[in-house]
Amino acid sequence: MDFISLIEKKKQGKAHSKEEICYIVKSLMEEKVYDSQISSWLMAVYFKGLSLEETAYLTEALAASGSTIDFGELSSLIVDKHSTGGVGDKVTITLIPLLAAAGIPIAKLADRGLGYAAGTVDKLESIPSLNTNLTTQAIVNQVKNINAVIASQAEELAPADKKLYTLRNITATYDSDVLIAASIISKKIAAGAANIILDVKYGSGAFMKTPDDAVGLSKLMVRVGKLLNKSVTAVVTSMEEPLGRAIGNSLEVIEAIEFLKGKIETGDLADLTYYFAITVLMNMGIYDNKEEAERFLRNLVHSGKAIEKFRELIIAQGGDTEVIDNYDRFELPAFKIECESKKSGYVQFINAYNIARAAKILGVNGSTGVNDSENKRPLDFSAGIYLNKKSGEYVNKGDILYTIYSNDEDNTKIAQKYCDEAFSINDTKPCHTNLVYTVIATRDEEEDV
Amino acid sequence: MDFISLIEKKKQGKAHSKEEICYIVKSLMEEKVYDSQISSWLMAVYFKGLSLEETAYLTEALAASGSTIDFGELSSLIVDKHSTGGVGDKVTITLIPLLAAAGIPIAKLADRGLGYAAGTVDKLESIPSLNTNLTTQAIVNQVKNINAVIASQAEELAPADKKLYTLRNITATYDSDVLIAASIISKKIAAGAANIILDVKYGSGAFMKTPDDAVGLSKLMVRVGKLLNKSVTAVVTSMEEPLGRAIGNSLEVIEAIEFLKGKIETGDLADLTYYFAITVLMNMGIYDNKEEAERFLRNLVHSGKAIEKFRELIIAQGGDTEVIDNYDRFELPAFKIECESKKSGYVQFINAYNIARAAKILGVNGSTGVNDSENKRPLDFSAGIYLNKKSGEYVNKGDILYTIYSNDEDNTKIAQKYCDEAFSINDTKPCHTNLVYTVIATRDEEEDV
Repeated sequence: MDFISLIEKKKQGKAHSKEEICYIVKSLMEEKVYDSQISSWLMAVYFKGLSLEETAYLTEALAASGSTIDFGELSSLIVDKHSTGGVGDKVTITLIPLLAAAGIPIAKLADRGLGYAAGTVDKLESIPSLNTNLTTQAIVNQVKNINAVIASQAEELAPADKKLYTLRNITATYDSDVLIAASIISKKIAAGAANIILDVKYGSGAFMKTPDDAVGLSKLMVRVGKLLNKSVTAVVTSMEEPLGRAIGNSLEVIEAIEFLKGKIETGDLADLTYYFAITVLMNMGIYDNKEEAERFLRNLVHSGKAIEKFRELIIAQGGDTEVIDNYDRFELPAFKIECESKKSGYVQFINAYNIARAAKILGVNGSTGVNDSENKRPLDFSAGIYLNKKSGEYVNKGDILYTIYSNDEDNTKIAQKYCDEAFSINDTKPCHTNLVYTVIATRDEEEDV
Repeated sequence: MDFISLIEKKKQGKAHSKEEICYIVKSLMEEKVYDSQISSWLMAVYFKGLSLEETAYLTEALAASGSTIDFGELSSLIVDKHSTGGVGDKVTITLIPLLAAAGIPIAKLADRGLGYAAGTVDKLESIPSLNTNLTTQAIVNQVKNINAVIASQAEELAPADKKLYTLRNITATYDSDVLIAASIISKKIAAGAANIILDVKYGSGAFMKTPDDAVGLSKLMVRVGKLLNKSVTAVVTSMEEPLGRAIGNSLEVIEAIEFLKGKIETGDLADLTYYFAITVLMNMGIYDNKEEAERFLRNLVHSGKAIEKFRELIIAQGGDTEVIDNYDRFELPAFKIECESKKSGYVQFINAYNIARAAKILGVNGSTGVNDSENKRPLDFSAGIYLNKKSGEYVNKGDILYTIYSNDEDNTKIAQKYCDEAFSINDTKPCHTNLVYTVIATRDEEEDV
């Protein structure tokens, strides 16, 4: 087998055999192929796609490219949750402690921020001294001890995916459904998940722009999971507007803590967290009635069990638990600017993309400097935006509309401009739109596949 | 400007500006971009193409990426000839001395063999001690002194094309019309050619498989040349069958010498050589009548002036001129095998691709070992195939059909198998097919462009 003929084959739209896909991943791992060859193959895949079988072969080969986590007798119960990324999306931080408090063993291997999407690992690391770089043994032990862990994707898990991911990001081949699906599912399989729940977002603040795109990717991931004997549930949700009120690293952790303390009972963040938690409890057969599951979960929050679980997680990962009761323990920004509304009316819409641009310029995501070395800058834990008003709320001219947390005056001005552009305000009260568009699960797909 | 967004732009099928194309070539030259990024861009170009303007910008930028040759007062007269490559194509070696003998200054910068196509440089270097690595000053001087030079493409001419060419070859992006056109024309412009004559081949032994493909590429090159103020003539010719009787390095030089001595007056090699020579003389306004031009050219051969010009070229480039009169001065193969026909009848067809495979296995092209390191081997000057019978000729069972020159017994057996597969023999005399399919020149294109 030689690599040029494999590129040529995909270029002509022909399907690879399992052996060929394994050869591609093996060549990548053993550096027996030039990055330039992998990259042209990736672009050919972007244009010509991969069949469901090819995607499953790729997923399997990526998952098997390094070590895998084995949770022993817990294996069949392990839940993992993944979001395709959105603005202000801190549902991982609200959901993991809640599910763990419900007795579900959940091991979340999370990413750092990339592009406009902030990463859960970055957010959690805003808790002073908290460690997310855990060995696979530490991950297994922590799940056995307290049911919950949020760790950064270990180097040794699915290393071929990491290599491919890096190339995809510099070669404009990130937005291929089949490559996204293989990347996401392979990491979850290597991490030992038996039950995978996916938040597949669409909208201005997401990678997928339309519900159809998100549904397509969801179906693909569910089908690939099925071929590889994993239970996959994909919840397609809207990311036209930021999720919750906080956008930023420590700001989002604070909002998650507020939820876990029971101080945020309604609104999109609470709704989505409960929705995912209920879905998991019902998928696992623990409840067969939504209302009962929700009562049980809300009680875990009100009784303090959810926030206690988060405290256990912080302790297990060496962080400062005092942040839970004293938010000033987080790194603080140089200044905060409360920005007033220039008109009165109902907030119709807050454009997530504009808010994401503002967050990026404030340093919420940092920048690796790849291909943009002039803009390389460290991550700012304390920077961010707080939305004092959300869609559907009434604002008077002069009321505080949003607040910027920043350490840089020039960037703050640009961020303010983006935020102002994000808000649409007028006289009529907007209709409520559903956050959840549809759910696609292995079971539902059985007839289709 | 950042490279990822340029890849993204081409991926979406949008056109690059002149500045963007210059940025791409500059980034390539200054190594400010990863090979993986150039390669995914190349694959996006394969799928989405380049407009005529983009192709001309790329051609210009590649040509300007290194030094260029300036022939001074001769500049407007300099002719260069290029073939897209075929099996047994030694027309460069027959044409250059013939045109130079006719008083035309011709500077041919040639390539080495690649893939199944043997290279003129490799062939010429089979003449003991002949040097093709000439400085640009040596090239200019030699043209001024004797009207002719055949040198290898100097490193400093169009170096960006060389980089791109290397990447195209390992990433299966060689077969993009626009990239081929930019590559060919940029090298000719850097080499100082004012009058470019192209042999664009199609068929089983060529890169382009159909006449339509070859016509498309020809029109593109003529139009790009026009945009860049160069006279380009593209002759579309068939490469379904090998050209001439010899395939191999020294074997092809010997056949060219035989032509230049006047010993081969008919057949495809003579026809095509005269066709090109006549076209150049008429393009340059030296003759306006084909028959007169042909008489003049044939006289140059019969009078010995053509072979004398080749002798001058060998002398100027330090080679052993005794090869002209004593073919045993060439490196000789360990053995030659005369292969008999297994049946009687007319040779209907000799498949060029099969002959090329046989030549490759014998070592006619060598192998760089890129992506095929097990098959890395040096070039064999003495190996090759001689077609004792050509299409249209009658052969009796037991007559010698072809002869293999080789230094390796195992490879010889494989080559013999390929050669046997190449020949179709049956009872009816085949129709004569025209070698020249069509000619496309700057003048003809004026109304279209």
